[in-house]
Amino acid sequence: MAVYTEVTDEALEAFLHEYDLGSVVAFRGIAEGVENSNYSLRTTEGDFILTLYEKRVDVTELPWFLGLMEHLAGAGLTCPQPVRARDGEALRTLAGRAAAITTFLPGIWPRRVRVEHCAPLGDAMAKLHRAGQGYAPVRVNALGPHGWAPLLERCLPRADEVNPGLAAELSSALPGIVAAWPHDLPRGHIHADLFPDNVFFLEGAVSGIIDFYFAATDLFAYDVAIALNAWCFEADGSFNLTKGRALLSGYNAVHRMSDAEAQALPVLCQGAAIRFALTRLYDWVNTPAGALVTRKDPMDYVRRLRFHLHATGAADYGF
Amino acid sequence: MAVYTEVTDEALEAFLHEYDLGSVVAFRGIAEGVENSNYSLRTTEGDFILTLYEKRVDVTELPWFLGLMEHLAGAGLTCPQPVRARDGEALRTLAGRAAAITTFLPGIWPRRVRVEHCAPLGDAMAKLHRAGQGYAPVRVNALGPHGWAPLLERCLPRADEVNPGLAAELSSALPGIVAAWPHDLPRGHIHADLFPDNVFFLEGAVSGIIDFYFAATDLFAYDVAIALNAWCFEADGSFNLTKGRALLSGYNAVHRMSDAEAQALPVLCQGAAIRFALTRLYDWVNTPAGALVTRKDPMDYVRRLRFHLHATGAADYGF
Repeated sequence: MAVYTEVTDEALEAFLHEYDLGSVVAFRGIAEGVENSNYSLRTTEGDFILTLYEKRVDVTELPWFLGLMEHLAGAGLTCPQPVRARDGEALRTLAGRAAAITTFLPGIWPRRVRVEHCAPLGDAMAKLHRAGQGYAPVRVNALGPHGWAPLLERCLPRADEVNPGLAAELSSALPGIVAAWPHDLPRGHIHADLFPDNVFFLEGAVSGIIDFYFAATDLFAYDVAIALNAWCFEADGSFNLTKGRALLSGYNAVHRMSDAEAQALPVLCQGAAIRFALTRLYDWVNTPAGALVTRKDPMDYVRRLRFHLHATGAADYGF
Repeated sequence: MAVYTEVTDEALEAFLHEYDLGSVVAFRGIAEGVENSNYSLRTTEGDFILTLYEKRVDVTELPWFLGLMEHLAGAGLTCPQPVRARDGEALRTLAGRAAAITTFLPGIWPRRVRVEHCAPLGDAMAKLHRAGQGYAPVRVNALGPHGWAPLLERCLPRADEVNPGLAAELSSALPGIVAAWPHDLPRGHIHADLFPDNVFFLEGAVSGIIDFYFAATDLFAYDVAIALNAWCFEADGSFNLTKGRALLSGYNAVHRMSDAEAQALPVLCQGAAIRFALTRLYDWVNTPAGALVTRKDPMDYVRRLRFHLHATGAADYGF
């Protein structure tokens, strides 16, 4: 469910009047996405996505995200390009929400990750990291290591409802991860949420990367660690080393990881696993049973965390 | 939320292999729709809708619906046209579900109905009624008058949870409506669910009618009564006579209603109101609080029913 705010045809027409995009040909809500309302918009000038930013998004941060997408697209990355209205502004208001139009990207996101997806994904992520260079504004990652302890604290009272012993397990793991966290690795703008539903493929190649609303200025290798978590585990919780190797080799072919980055992979993967375990746990304990959003099981990422806590080096990931 | 069944890219590619539609360019879930999973599918040959039929649909009835759409499209109505695969079959299986590809229709459905929508809607509905002539197979309307008493019976025990006194109100109204129901009016294939989200507009004209999965062989004027309920009431429950007049004049200009049809409008509108009140009530009392579907308030149609019970003739609807 990803249409929280309905847009009337009159409001849409008035909104489009500010752009040089011709007139509306079709307008459908898109089912994918969780945070915002997304519409597929066809005009006489082409295909676009209209996004209405819902309440979980901090409106003051939107110019950073839109600026990053514009920079990345300008640097040759296939990502949604914000479309500016005639007055030069891409970020506007529609139906009481901050709203923006971006370009439409072709492709399909992989519902089931296969090995063949992983090298192109690594390649595309490395290109994203390169393309971000030169975008000067910085965004601190609110969901980086300093954000995890406060998040855990808010989840602790109800964590054991999800799984008995979970509060103790996370409380015991977190301090070690934060203490071992590397701070001197190469950094830049990272996607920070590069899950399969944010990556489109066409004929075996990545055709587009979407949803930059968790992007931040952080360690490049942390983005790699997030992707290892999101792309290389099977449904039964096992790590697929062939996928890991493909992802890392795809990445390294474009943007070679340093020895220090490679050595940090276990702790970075632990951090990535606990970050998604915590946000899922937070949503789980805070989502009313009657809500329209499908809750994601935090235990998927607790199991990944257990794997990473036993990893001894980059070789465990196929480096 | 209208994606209940996920389709992997491999399954989609194998499925498309049966068609002469080229290869996939884009594939997105559509948020609109409640009963089935709908995807927007772009191939190198054009734009299409892929529908997976979910469990509320009786698979044995799908050939009737698809045959009707094909007939209507052939008769010049702008409705989704089933696309046949190379073996000549339009109805297939994908991801464990019955599935069909239909053509994509341009347009936007009106989130807020204005008077200007109502005459084109009446015009399009009359053309639909005309275009259906010549499609020989018959489908009995399971949600016609003989279906209402059993439905009411299943809702009665919990109706008063929705609104105190509702069980008595519906029980008191229903027998009179069924007893007064006309049986000798002109009949043919009707849409039977012509709500605003099933009608696309483009530049003031109807550009397409979708979602024929409640269509049946029934009284033409009952379809008009359903549309009067769905298009001509304001959010506060009041009937907008200007909209009613526009709808009826749009209809009559193409397909003139007989005096008998016009005189039956009050009881037909009562029936239409109680039909939607009952299915909404049934869903309301049977939808678990945690379900992904937004429940619609049955009282919207109970209030319409009260209006119709006070109507004395066609003039009350702007005829």
